[in-house]
Amino acid sequence: MSQATNSFVESNQDRLLEELKQFLRIPSVSTLPEHAGDIRRAAEFVASSFKTAGLENIEIIPTAKHPLVYADWLHAPGKPTVLCYGHYDVQPPDPLNEWISPPFEPTLRDGNIYARGSADDKGQMYMHIKAVEALRAVNGTLPLNLKFLIEGEEEVGGESVAKYVAENAVKLKADVALVSDTELFAEGLPTLCVGLRGLIYTEIEARGPSRDLHSGMYGGAAPNAVFGLVELLAKLKDSNGVIQVPGMYDDVAPPDPAEKKSWSALPFDEKEFLQNEVGSSRLTGEPGYGVLERVWARPTLEVHGIAGGFTGAGAKTVIPARATAKVSMRMVPNQDPEKIIASYKAFIQEHTPAGIETEVRILSYGRAISVNPNHHAIEVAAKALRDVMNKETVFIRSGGSIPIVGDFAKHLGIPTILMGFGLPDDGLHSPNEKYKLANYYAGIMTIAHFFEQYGQ
Amino acid sequence: MSQATNSFVESNQDRLLEELKQFLRIPSVSTLPEHAGDIRRAAEFVASSFKTAGLENIEIIPTAKHPLVYADWLHAPGKPTVLCYGHYDVQPPDPLNEWISPPFEPTLRDGNIYARGSADDKGQMYMHIKAVEALRAVNGTLPLNLKFLIEGEEEVGGESVAKYVAENAVKLKADVALVSDTELFAEGLPTLCVGLRGLIYTEIEARGPSRDLHSGMYGGAAPNAVFGLVELLAKLKDSNGVIQVPGMYDDVAPPDPAEKKSWSALPFDEKEFLQNEVGSSRLTGEPGYGVLERVWARPTLEVHGIAGGFTGAGAKTVIPARATAKVSMRMVPNQDPEKIIASYKAFIQEHTPAGIETEVRILSYGRAISVNPNHHAIEVAAKALRDVMNKETVFIRSGGSIPIVGDFAKHLGIPTILMGFGLPDDGLHSPNEKYKLANYYAGIMTIAHFFEQYGQ
Repeated sequence: MSQATNSFVESNQDRLLEELKQFLRIPSVSTLPEHAGDIRRAAEFVASSFKTAGLENIEIIPTAKHPLVYADWLHAPGKPTVLCYGHYDVQPPDPLNEWISPPFEPTLRDGNIYARGSADDKGQMYMHIKAVEALRAVNGTLPLNLKFLIEGEEEVGGESVAKYVAENAVKLKADVALVSDTELFAEGLPTLCVGLRGLIYTEIEARGPSRDLHSGMYGGAAPNAVFGLVELLAKLKDSNGVIQVPGMYDDVAPPDPAEKKSWSALPFDEKEFLQNEVGSSRLTGEPGYGVLERVWARPTLEVHGIAGGFTGAGAKTVIPARATAKVSMRMVPNQDPEKIIASYKAFIQEHTPAGIETEVRILSYGRAISVNPNHHAIEVAAKALRDVMNKETVFIRSGGSIPIVGDFAKHLGIPTILMGFGLPDDGLHSPNEKYKLANYYAGIMTIAHFFEQYGQ
Repeated sequence: MSQATNSFVESNQDRLLEELKQFLRIPSVSTLPEHAGDIRRAAEFVASSFKTAGLENIEIIPTAKHPLVYADWLHAPGKPTVLCYGHYDVQPPDPLNEWISPPFEPTLRDGNIYARGSADDKGQMYMHIKAVEALRAVNGTLPLNLKFLIEGEEEVGGESVAKYVAENAVKLKADVALVSDTELFAEGLPTLCVGLRGLIYTEIEARGPSRDLHSGMYGGAAPNAVFGLVELLAKLKDSNGVIQVPGMYDDVAPPDPAEKKSWSALPFDEKEFLQNEVGSSRLTGEPGYGVLERVWARPTLEVHGIAGGFTGAGAKTVIPARATAKVSMRMVPNQDPEKIIASYKAFIQEHTPAGIETEVRILSYGRAISVNPNHHAIEVAAKALRDVMNKETVFIRSGGSIPIVGDFAKHLGIPTILMGFGLPDDGLHSPNEKYKLANYYAGIMTIAHFFEQYGQ
């Protein structure tokens, strides 16, 4: 491990933090059209950071939606090439009133930086750029070849980057991809993620009467779009959370016994998970599976939001004409999203209540990912983590979805190192998202160290 | 029938319309706090109209919420006294984008006046005041004693007027109450309403995790407040609309055979009702009951609105922490709302899914109403309607709720004449609410005629 890069990080802490704060102040919410200008500003910020780090061939690449930012440094012939990926877009910050400090005014509390995007993914992708800056400052050069591809649509399905990867396989060719958009299993525990669930994201719209009706005049004869949607959604899972869409579990690959055994050795306390992270009266889910298996290796279905009828203060006696819900399904290895989508659509049509019409819109989908832990780059990454953090690296999965990892496998034929420095209580997608400052600095050191080791 | 009052109405049509338009321009939405000033303006408009009509002892009476407006004229000793009731508040106009002309800019199209409150109830209560004005203009006096009590909370439960009636029984004492807040069964068909359903209006809040969670990280282990609420609501009715709350149908009084027979003689076309009024693919409701019986004489349960989680454009992968729904039940004669509320609350607690906490809030409740069609005042009203409209008066019920009618029965011991001039397609509580101008004028004539006949 290079003491020099570590010293560089330590002596530049304040500046590295101030620059991250600037990045976090840009409200680059990709799903909301009113933030298009902020998305552009965030892309320009990334391009300018590439320049400072000494990367070359910097491009802001227009797409059908939000721009990609590319850069490379290719002056290490005979050395491997790493493709660094991250995203500069963030989730919407609502519910706004639950934030202790404003989501786009980064604020330090208890050694953490609080802001939307601090952990997911601005704070993490920025470490890659700063690792390059540190290595160049210390050595005047880089130990291997690097390509950077940063997108602005990760939180809305990532269509543009998927298309770009498919169409630019030669330009992007590398030996391995590096993504920091996951978390340490526990504070201080070096972690590599070798599995991700896939995601099918949908919207269901239900229509009943042609207009909102008076519930006194029509209640008992007119179908109710909200109730119709409620009846339909309730049929998607049984009371144990078992998904009722036919064929949902047919192709599910169970984790192999060795992997399952390693999970049971992880420092996981179900009671603490319930109290400190979930905060409900009890956990739920399929009987017969442990929490980690339910979250990492089982398909799930969630309703993310629902809206219809009168929802203001007080009373209004309408039979609503329309209602909508956002519904997603998480996929595990060996499941074919297109097969599941077809079965899901058929299920919705079949179970739509009398008098109601439904429409299903598929917003995005991607399959689950597995990475081989014995791949050379993964082994080097595990060693780099161990060297910096002084503990044996553990291999876990994540229940989340990073569709680009599937695109790298399919179009570039390369595995992805999922080396994230978030923590389980970082509150991704929630109010008061945070990122631990110590992990920001350790991440920069570890990535620089990995580049050096992998370049040898 | 007095030709003189009819002539007065005919020769003052333009002014009577202009004055109504002024009233309708005031957005007196009682459920939204931001309209408090408009509520006050509407109350003042009513008081000023009383003055113009020659009514006396005019008061704007402050309450815990929205003011009542009172007036009387008591110079006909030995003659009966009629208590006229109406409401100056209106339902919220949303969804705003479905209005063809703005809800608070009254607009004439095809012989109708379009505005929120045109039929429910401003346009109708205003007829009473204008009937007084017409009689005084023509005769210089009135044929009986009159009291007016107009409220501003009808659309939000009417708590203040209920309290006022309970506490001022002597002041309000009358022989009969007159309310115009119902409709003709069909265009040109004189109609009296002799039954109203009661209403229990509630709000259910469901809570799951302590904050919105990432559905990748926690999906499969954390309860989802939206899905929990959906599961719970779906259990409230079976697929035929039969309410599952225990005891819901125990005390229901079926309509007597003669009344049921008269309903079958009404000009009701189920196909036209479906196509022109409801506009869905089919009607729904309890099997074994006709449409009129389902709407008039059976309890029903509706979800008026639901909200929770992410409902903006695009995708957000949260497990929502909270969700709420507005749920009401309509009561029919002989049902005890307090008994039903207790059973409903117990049902909600019992069926709340694991990991979810629910809270039920009762916003208002009132029992169903029946009026005896053989009461003298009802017979005079039926004759007045027949005289003006040249057709035999029919007796119907309404599926809606006018809780004040129960208060008049309980505290003043008087029946209520429900003599409304709305039409089934007026769109109460919906976008593009309208009131037929011809019915506005005919209503003024009929009410004046009723006052004259009942005063003899």
